[in-house]
Amino acid sequence: MLSEFDLIAQYFTRPARDTVRVALSVGDDCALIAPSPGMQLAISTDMLVEGRHFFPGADPFWLGHKCLAVNLSDLAAMGAKPLAFTLALALPDSRAEWLAPFSQGMLALADAHGCELIGGDTTKGPLNICITVFGEVAPGQALRRDRAMVSDDIWISGTLGDARLALAGYRNELALDADALEAAAQRMHAPTPRVALGQTLCGLAHAAIDISDGLVGDLGHILQRSRVGATLDADALPAGPMLSMQPQDVRRRCALAGGDDYELCFTAPAKRRAEILDAARSAGIAVTRVGTIESAPGLRLVGANGAPLNLQLSSFDHFASP
Amino acid sequence: MLSEFDLIAQYFTRPARDTVRVALSVGDDCALIAPSPGMQLAISTDMLVEGRHFFPGADPFWLGHKCLAVNLSDLAAMGAKPLAFTLALALPDSRAEWLAPFSQGMLALADAHGCELIGGDTTKGPLNICITVFGEVAPGQALRRDRAMVSDDIWISGTLGDARLALAGYRNELALDADALEAAAQRMHAPTPRVALGQTLCGLAHAAIDISDGLVGDLGHILQRSRVGATLDADALPAGPMLSMQPQDVRRRCALAGGDDYELCFTAPAKRRAEILDAARSAGIAVTRVGTIESAPGLRLVGANGAPLNLQLSSFDHFASP
Repeated sequence: MLSEFDLIAQYFTRPARDTVRVALSVGDDCALIAPSPGMQLAISTDMLVEGRHFFPGADPFWLGHKCLAVNLSDLAAMGAKPLAFTLALALPDSRAEWLAPFSQGMLALADAHGCELIGGDTTKGPLNICITVFGEVAPGQALRRDRAMVSDDIWISGTLGDARLALAGYRNELALDADALEAAAQRMHAPTPRVALGQTLCGLAHAAIDISDGLVGDLGHILQRSRVGATLDADALPAGPMLSMQPQDVRRRCALAGGDDYELCFTAPAKRRAEILDAARSAGIAVTRVGTIESAPGLRLVGANGAPLNLQLSSFDHFASP
Repeated sequence: MLSEFDLIAQYFTRPARDTVRVALSVGDDCALIAPSPGMQLAISTDMLVEGRHFFPGADPFWLGHKCLAVNLSDLAAMGAKPLAFTLALALPDSRAEWLAPFSQGMLALADAHGCELIGGDTTKGPLNICITVFGEVAPGQALRRDRAMVSDDIWISGTLGDARLALAGYRNELALDADALEAAAQRMHAPTPRVALGQTLCGLAHAAIDISDGLVGDLGHILQRSRVGATLDADALPAGPMLSMQPQDVRRRCALAGGDDYELCFTAPAKRRAEILDAARSAGIAVTRVGTIESAPGLRLVGANGAPLNLQLSSFDHFASP
């Protein structure tokens, strides 16, 4: 068993790469960072609990990746550039077999985004991973939830629903062959935060959110805070490659209310369509128009023929589900 | 049972008071803050686990206070001015009887320090409270651990050991009458972060740390990072009012290795003694000189007569203790 201090020194301490913005890193009472002059700091925190956000025994490399990815996804949804993060970790024990791959998975993603681990806390306890992430965004440029405008297009990045499909497979809610389950589960275990896309959308998109609890619920936050409504074309939603082989009802439900997608949902004026497509191309990710913001409150679902759909869907609520 | 979103709206969402520095608070993918021009941001995170950092069934008002207090104490130890914090919370359930006093205790302390709750996360899980706190400090002014100089005085704020004495009482390691236990337990349940003192010490003290794991261990971090040693007068240590009524051996052990004190230990040149005392008076807290920084590595304990003490002490390590 490693001591608390050995654990931090061995797995979570590296020299700061960016000594301009990171003035003091792991090892003091606080880290010190110097945001670029005039920039705002975007801050988000996410806590992941074993048995709730990931299965007991989850692969530690991909768990480390995912814990940081879901936080970077919040920066992406604001259009912020990643800067640094802190990691607080409650662990039942301090085994190197777990800590080494966990820190490798996390720090590989951190390096890919130039996001420095600047501090944290470790304690004994039921496995719980809490990350707070910091990014920079120019004043007035952040992609907020409360800025959607009537007649905006609604866009989705990438594809939806494969993570939920994998969960359905693990739970035996439906039968998936082993290859399909493994392919879908990639989306659950190794989400890709749309960091570059978020930054290219600053100044183009009006509002954005990342899809973590399911599109209907997360788009609902934009509608509520922007005091608008929307019509969404359920059959225009870009289903993940594994989900697209499923029957229509499964496709619709997983894409609309799946959760764990970590794609961006954003709204933008119709006249910016060409620029949006260019921005997405430059960020290396497809985007799809799936609906329209309207003044009438509420979310209306329609099928490919424009006819209203009546689906009972519920978004994820940590205190409503068992 | 409250839903996740009702819970956040009801207990943890308030209009931002400081709209200059807090551009966007609870309710979006990220909070947005604008640090004062030219200032560095000091960042610290602490995770508190039920059964580890506090007793199951701990009073929720004081638990809310303590969770934020231990984080503010890290800002104090850097000399930083509190600005904002995020709260991530794993809860077994969402009961108003617990959430209402917990949020009141936390937000009362936040208000006293002008520290705004700007975001967070809630999830179901074993009770775990993770706070990340943000403060401001002028470049080059932060009180770091690695700046102690040979022949510096070593100072302690307030008094030490009453929190550890209460723990000994709860654990029946020693017999305390009910009044003494209750008085000592105040220090365990309701620590006071030395925020004003930390700020007044900027430019005066060379190095500082807050005493959370016990003086010997925490001063040891200063010595290690500053590559110096020290002699500490064990009988000069300011014992808490309840601890001071205990026999010498208990006094020494609780004051030297107690933990949970949240006082500041700092080093400063001997020629600044009068200014240190003035600074402490203006911050409303007593400070006591307890030793000297020396070039020879290691920590030497002496008694009132200057004779070496040979005490076996151990600082708290989350993965060494059962």
